[in-house]
Amino acid sequence: MGKLLIVGTVAFDAIETPFGKTDKILGGAATYIGLSASNFGVTSGIVSVVGGDFPLEYLDMLNDHNIDTSGIEIKREGKTFFWSGKYHNDLNTRDTLITDLNVLADFKPKVPENFLDCEFLMLGNLHPSVQMEVIKQIPVRPKLVVLDTMNFWMDNTWDELVEVIKKIDVITINDEEARQMSGEYSLVKAAQKIHEMGPKYVVIKKGEHGALLFNEENVFFAPALPLEEVFDPTGAGDTFAGGFIGYLASSRDISFSNMKRAVIYGSNFASFCVEKFGTERMADLSQKEIQNRLKQFKELTQFEIELS
Amino acid sequence: MGKLLIVGTVAFDAIETPFGKTDKILGGAATYIGLSASNFGVTSGIVSVVGGDFPLEYLDMLNDHNIDTSGIEIKREGKTFFWSGKYHNDLNTRDTLITDLNVLADFKPKVPENFLDCEFLMLGNLHPSVQMEVIKQIPVRPKLVVLDTMNFWMDNTWDELVEVIKKIDVITINDEEARQMSGEYSLVKAAQKIHEMGPKYVVIKKGEHGALLFNEENVFFAPALPLEEVFDPTGAGDTFAGGFIGYLASSRDISFSNMKRAVIYGSNFASFCVEKFGTERMADLSQKEIQNRLKQFKELTQFEIELS
Repeated sequence: MGKLLIVGTVAFDAIETPFGKTDKILGGAATYIGLSASNFGVTSGIVSVVGGDFPLEYLDMLNDHNIDTSGIEIKREGKTFFWSGKYHNDLNTRDTLITDLNVLADFKPKVPENFLDCEFLMLGNLHPSVQMEVIKQIPVRPKLVVLDTMNFWMDNTWDELVEVIKKIDVITINDEEARQMSGEYSLVKAAQKIHEMGPKYVVIKKGEHGALLFNEENVFFAPALPLEEVFDPTGAGDTFAGGFIGYLASSRDISFSNMKRAVIYGSNFASFCVEKFGTERMADLSQKEIQNRLKQFKELTQFEIELS
Repeated sequence: MGKLLIVGTVAFDAIETPFGKTDKILGGAATYIGLSASNFGVTSGIVSVVGGDFPLEYLDMLNDHNIDTSGIEIKREGKTFFWSGKYHNDLNTRDTLITDLNVLADFKPKVPENFLDCEFLMLGNLHPSVQMEVIKQIPVRPKLVVLDTMNFWMDNTWDELVEVIKKIDVITINDEEARQMSGEYSLVKAAQKIHEMGPKYVVIKKGEHGALLFNEENVFFAPALPLEEVFDPTGAGDTFAGGFIGYLASSRDISFSNMKRAVIYGSNFASFCVEKFGTERMADLSQKEIQNRLKQFKELTQFEIELS
């Protein structure tokens, strides 16, 4: 198995959906990525920062999932990053109510000694200069570097984003962001333009409409599992990314055919994530549930037609 | 092979997309359905009505595709149904500019003698009482009846629509229409509610986001092929339906696993339809092109994961 390093937020979220609302609960990109990847039993570590208000039991929970938290800096005098949002009735759109950066405002990432030899690096959605700083600290280039980003960084830190994107292998972004980044409406053309910016692989996340994986020659599509009820979409994209890189790290195979499987695992885990608030579902997922849902994915997508 | 009867509009369309505009060209649901189904070499016939302005060469073209046009009534004193629309830049939405019902306003369908024994019946998007009238004229219930409809009939002829839906096997509608029809946002729940209204099979068309096939136990998903350029979406839904029922009619197998293949063929043909204006692409499609694109669909969707 390849050692996996995850850089991203560990945070408090307060979420409101049509089905209810939460107080401050555990959230953050690195949290979701780590929990998702943990289903493959990979050795992973998180680089992040939290404040003195962060409950130790959350760190314990991450440790229980085989996630090394020594890279999570604890600034006792500061407060943990806090995001609050309210989803609209269709759950496809949301309003951000509060974004308190707190200790994240002057975050200086530091890769722990024991992860300087990581083979797989997941750069969660963060300021591109933080993502770049982590790349610089790792002496031997990892086997695979995956980066997630969002429209906020395209709007505000475009030049830094362009620089870090040159150094990675896989970018994961949503469809609107792919269009913004490339200036192309067609996602096929958008992926081509983004390839030219650096990444050999482009993953376009379309939420309930699934995800596309492109390299320069091939394209693969994984649908989202049609669900009776989506309860809370928070973290679904990060859970997808965690399943993707977690599977690749566990198998140490970065061929396109293996990446297809990784995309299916990402979609599989994301379909669990949205069933309950926050990390609740992901913190407690059995191998049997995963296998049963994998069977559903096969039934949903696999067909037999002889080519003549 | 099962004999296929298609009821629907044969029309003139004038289309404007960001890529150009057309004068009055051949259009109509039955036209697209028939051309699409013709790729399987099935014996098919159309029940429709046109005016004296309808060019004979269009009828010839349909005949050349092995489509019986004896059920297309020609009202020489009237004018052919005319629709004109303009697509927005994203091609996902459009404005209807003109709808001239003309001879369609008092259309009384008449199934020709030689199609009274049809095994497969496709009721294209039309007034539900016209759809019902066709069902009544056929003495022995066909093996499979597929119905397409739209929000206009839900808004204006709900009671008639509910009656005809009780008598069919498969309904094809788009996602927004499925939500309107069922009052459910979740497409899984929407399909369940629509099953209760009659149809054993529900096909939900999501345009560029693919199509879902439900029966009461199973669900299957076919993506739309990601294309560099969508030129004109007109007729894509009817082309999908024509591929679906055409494949079923040619194989005479209405098992769920065969319906999966039918949905893939529907998506396959729809991906060609949108590449040129109107019926241009569908009127001239080779088996080699179809097979090559089928290969693309397999590469796009098929993966190998062992279940444990």
